[in-house]
Amino acid sequence: MAMTQKSFATGSTYPPLADGVLRVYSMRFCPFAQRTRLVLQHKKIPHETVNVDLKKKPEWFLERNPFGLVPTLEQGDKIVYESNICNVYLDEAYPGEKLISTDPYQKARDQILIDTFGKVTAAHFKLLRNIDGPDEFVKELKRYEEALKQRGNYFGGNKPNMVDFTVWPWFERFQLLEMVDFKLDAANFPLILAYINRMYELPAVKATMFDKESHLTFVKSYQAGEPNYDFGL
Amino acid sequence: MAMTQKSFATGSTYPPLADGVLRVYSMRFCPFAQRTRLVLQHKKIPHETVNVDLKKKPEWFLERNPFGLVPTLEQGDKIVYESNICNVYLDEAYPGEKLISTDPYQKARDQILIDTFGKVTAAHFKLLRNIDGPDEFVKELKRYEEALKQRGNYFGGNKPNMVDFTVWPWFERFQLLEMVDFKLDAANFPLILAYINRMYELPAVKATMFDKESHLTFVKSYQAGEPNYDFGL
Repeated sequence: MAMTQKSFATGSTYPPLADGVLRVYSMRFCPFAQRTRLVLQHKKIPHETVNVDLKKKPEWFLERNPFGLVPTLEQGDKIVYESNICNVYLDEAYPGEKLISTDPYQKARDQILIDTFGKVTAAHFKLLRNIDGPDEFVKELKRYEEALKQRGNYFGGNKPNMVDFTVWPWFERFQLLEMVDFKLDAANFPLILAYINRMYELPAVKATMFDKESHLTFVKSYQAGEPNYDFGL
Repeated sequence: MAMTQKSFATGSTYPPLADGVLRVYSMRFCPFAQRTRLVLQHKKIPHETVNVDLKKKPEWFLERNPFGLVPTLEQGDKIVYESNICNVYLDEAYPGEKLISTDPYQKARDQILIDTFGKVTAAHFKLLRNIDGPDEFVKELKRYEEALKQRGNYFGGNKPNMVDFTVWPWFERFQLLEMVDFKLDAANFPLILAYINRMYELPAVKATMFDKESHLTFVKSYQAGEPNYDFGL
């Protein structure tokens, strides 16, 4: 099963999971699921993808994750959910380049950027929905501009680490703010603007991204209460 | 400096930090700070405590943690905040019994109990404030009753682990719900009621707890908008 498979809805039959196969439940436009899809791609972890209709959730999906959220990982009788927990699990349980520092202090400082990014996503949501103006969003995002100044080309320094793959899905979606006539400006966010261009070069980003028009189409359908989960398939 | 030192407020002078000493910034009645105080006690990590007035935050405190929240750890030029990040840092950087599993899957399942506990604390807050009835609180807490059924005497199994020290501060405060005439009943929560008695026997709990009357006094002062941070000193 691949990213291009249409989403399973209420009443569907559970798609059998082969022995030993790692499955990720996803919704193609969900930024939280993209966090985990980025890590799967970057670490080249073999897996299959099952897309889920988040408005009409399959009964068998709710049995596996009672919160009914993506991403959810399944392998044999193992179930893991919550994007950051999935990503730590993948980094620890699978070989390849480690995305989380083994130095406890560096790891803690990275984790602060990960855990407090919720302030950016909340402000982004309110700005996109016209609930709030841009002040809070700009203030919270400035912390990340500052972090890049200290850290280098990526939040991970000279190469991307778990911080990058955790925050990226929203950076890809900042362009949606044109819906409310907001654009990141070079005066306030020179490093973030360069960072966004740099990140688009990563194979993992190329493998999981959507172009602006697709994002706009999805978010408009979502805001209209009829999310088009299968747009483009 | 000890737990019994009165809280520092705006305009105070930064209390010098000796070389190599680990300091925790706390507020005596804060459940988030208690999470970290529990881990410091349980792992017997030498430290000093500096209490902070969270309504009139010292300028030097905001320089160290721009969010101005407790717990915050300081040692030399190292600063760590967010209770769960502080606790992971302490578990990894200090010797002694490890509170986080080294098995990636067990760790992920533990982390789900930690990360989704926010649903319990939010429901507890709303119930205590009379914003909501008990239904949501009971539903969310039932997940933890169920987890104890699967896990044993503690969320960590036959001994407490990081899950226990993360959730405990709210279990200690469930008795405050008598303010809204709510009490955990033996029909719904037999394992949690036994668990609470068991946890009170732990030295770390004894070292960080307050009795019901002190909690009630503090929470009433807090709800009245004049938190009595130094109550009992």
